Amino acid sequence: MVAGVVDADFNLLETRQAPTKGTRPFTEVVQSMAEVAQQALAAAGLTEADIDYVGLGVPSTVNPVTKRLAFANNLGWKDVDIEGEFQKYWNVPVELGNDADCAALGEVYAGVAKAYSSAILFTLGTGVGGGIVLNNKLFLGGDGLGIEPGHSLLIYDGFPCTCGRRGCLEAYASVTALIRETIDMMLVHPHSLMWDECGRDLNRVNGRTSFNAAKKGDEAGTLVVQQYINYLAEGIASLVTVFRPEAVIIGGGVSNEGDYLIKPLYDIVSKSIYAGDVLGSPPILKAKLGNSAGIIGAAILGAQPK
Amino acid sequence: MVAGVVDADFNLLETRQAPTKGTRPFTEVVQSMAEVAQQALAAAGLTEADIDYVGLGVPSTVNPVTKRLAFANNLGWKDVDIEGEFQKYWNVPVELGNDADCAALGEVYAGVAKAYSSAILFTLGTGVGGGIVLNNKLFLGGDGLGIEPGHSLLIYDGFPCTCGRRGCLEAYASVTALIRETIDMMLVHPHSLMWDECGRDLNRVNGRTSFNAAKKGDEAGTLVVQQYINYLAEGIASLVTVFRPEAVIIGGGVSNEGDYLIKPLYDIVSKSIYAGDVLGSPPILKAKLGNSAGIIGAAILGAQPK
Repeated sequence: MVAGVVDADFNLLETRQAPTKGTRPFTEVVQSMAEVAQQALAAAGLTEADIDYVGLGVPSTVNPVTKRLAFANNLGWKDVDIEGEFQKYWNVPVELGNDADCAALGEVYAGVAKAYSSAILFTLGTGVGGGIVLNNKLFLGGDGLGIEPGHSLLIYDGFPCTCGRRGCLEAYASVTALIRETIDMMLVHPHSLMWDECGRDLNRVNGRTSFNAAKKGDEAGTLVVQQYINYLAEGIASLVTVFRPEAVIIGGGVSNEGDYLIKPLYDIVSKSIYAGDVLGSPPILKAKLGNSAGIIGAAILGAQPK
Repeated sequence: MVAGVVDADFNLLETRQAPTKGTRPFTEVVQSMAEVAQQALAAAGLTEADIDYVGLGVPSTVNPVTKRLAFANNLGWKDVDIEGEFQKYWNVPVELGNDADCAALGEVYAGVAKAYSSAILFTLGTGVGGGIVLNNKLFLGGDGLGIEPGHSLLIYDGFPCTCGRRGCLEAYASVTALIRETIDMMLVHPHSLMWDECGRDLNRVNGRTSFNAAKKGDEAGTLVVQQYINYLAEGIASLVTVFRPEAVIIGGGVSNEGDYLIKPLYDIVSKSIYAGDVLGSPPILKAKLGNSAGIIGAAILGAQPK
C-alpha cells in the first residue's frame, strides 16, 4: 500500500509505503493504511488541518449508496465499512474509489490524457483493470458500482476467466494471459527464440518474452505478439464503440512496449470500432504516471464535478 | 415514418404515418416528416402554439455538437442538417435523437421500466439496436454520439457483421442471425420439425421457426433456441457488467416469446455478469410499448434532466 500527499495542482509531494499483508483481518489492514497516510502527511510537513480529505483507492467494488466496500476479491472483503474504520484514526472526510478508477482519474487530470475530458484506461497486468472518465468525472455505471472493462466478453465460451465466466477480455489480454499464450506457442515451436529469452525455463516466461523474441525477428514470437494485439484491439474496440471516449490509455507492464504495441493496436482498433471511418477513432496513449496514477487519482476523487 | 402527439404524462394521443421511401433525396424525406407531423397535430386538434418542441427520432448517429445527423447507414445520409431542413416547415424547437435511444427513453419513462431510473434496452430485429438510460437520461457516450450495443463483441473473429466487423452481438442475436442459425441447423437435421414450421421452404424460415419447433419438443429446434439464448445472454451480460443498469429490457420481434425466452436468459445473465452473486443481477423485462416506444421517447428527448 502507498500513501501520498497531493497538492491542488495534482502534484505528488510525498509518498510512504507499507506491505499490505492482505491476509490480515480487515481492521489491521485499515490501521496500517491510516498509519502510512500519517507518515506521508508528516513527511510533507503537514497536519490534518492542511488537507481537505483523504481519498482511498481500494482494489474493491465501492457501493456509492452505503459508502462501504462491496466486494474486494483479492482481499476477501465483503461489505465492509472502510470509512468508519479509517476515521478511527483520521478526523477528516474520506472519499472512496476503486483503485483502477483512481488511476484513470489520475491520468486524465494529471497524466497523459490531460488534454481530454474523457478517456478509458486499460491497465494490463495480472488482470485487465481500468476505468472510464467522461466529462472529467468517473463513469461508475447505473448503480455506481463501477465498470469492469476486463470482464466484457472477447470470445463467447472462450478460455476460463478468474471471475468464473469464460472468454473475458482479461483471459486474453492480461499479462497472465500473455504468458499462457507465449507458453502455448513455445510448446509447438521448440526452436523459437522465445526459449532463449526465458533461459529454456517455462517458469521464467514473462510478459516480455514474446515481444523480445518478436523484435529479433522470431516467427513464433511474432505470432504471439500479433495475436495478443489483435485480442486487445478487439476488446478495446468493443468498449470504444459503447463509450466513445476522446482517448484510450494503455497502462500496466505491457504498455512499456510503447509504439511497438500501440501503433498496430491503433490500426486495428480504428478499423474495428463502429463507423470509425465516419465518426473517427480516438488516439491510443501510453499511460505516463505509472503507479502514481492511482495515488494522484485517489486524491482527485473529491475534486470531480458534482 | 410515424408521427405522434404526446402529452405531458407521456400518453400517445394521435399518430399518423407515411412511407419513408428512403431512397428519395434527404430534403424530400424531411418534407414528408414535417407533413406527417402536421397531420398528427391536426388530428389531435392542436396547433404549433400548443406544443413545446418536436422530437425527431431518426435511425442515425446524432452529432450533439453540430446538432446534425452524422451517419444514417440505412438512409445513406451523412452529416445532414435535419433541424434546419425540418424548420422550413415547422416554427418550433427541434430535439434530435437516435430512434433506438428514443425507444429506450420511452420504455423507461412510460413503459415497462417506469419503476427504474436506469435501464438498457436491446431491440432484437433485423439488427440488434438499443439504448441506455442512466439516471433518467440517455447515456450517449463520451462524445455524445450514442452507443451501439449491437456492435460490441460476442465472438472474436466470428461471423461477419453488416458493420464490417466480425463477431458483433448483432451477428448472433438479431432476427437475421436467428434465421441463419435456424437454417444452419435445419440443413443438418432433415427430419426436424422446423422443416414443417416453414412449409419445407428455407425462404420462409423466420424468427419464430425454431421457437415454435422447440415448444413442440423438437430437438434440433431446441438446440437453436438454447444456442441463441446463450449468445444473447452473454452479450447482455457484457454490457450489464460495464453499465450496471437497474433493469434490462428486451424489445423487438423475438421478445414476443416472453418467458420462454426471458426466464432462461435471466438464468444465464445472472451467472455471467461480473460478481453477480455478490452485487446482484438486474431483472430482464419484456418491452411493452412496441413501436410506440420510439415515438413516445422522441417526445421525451427534451424532458430529460439537464
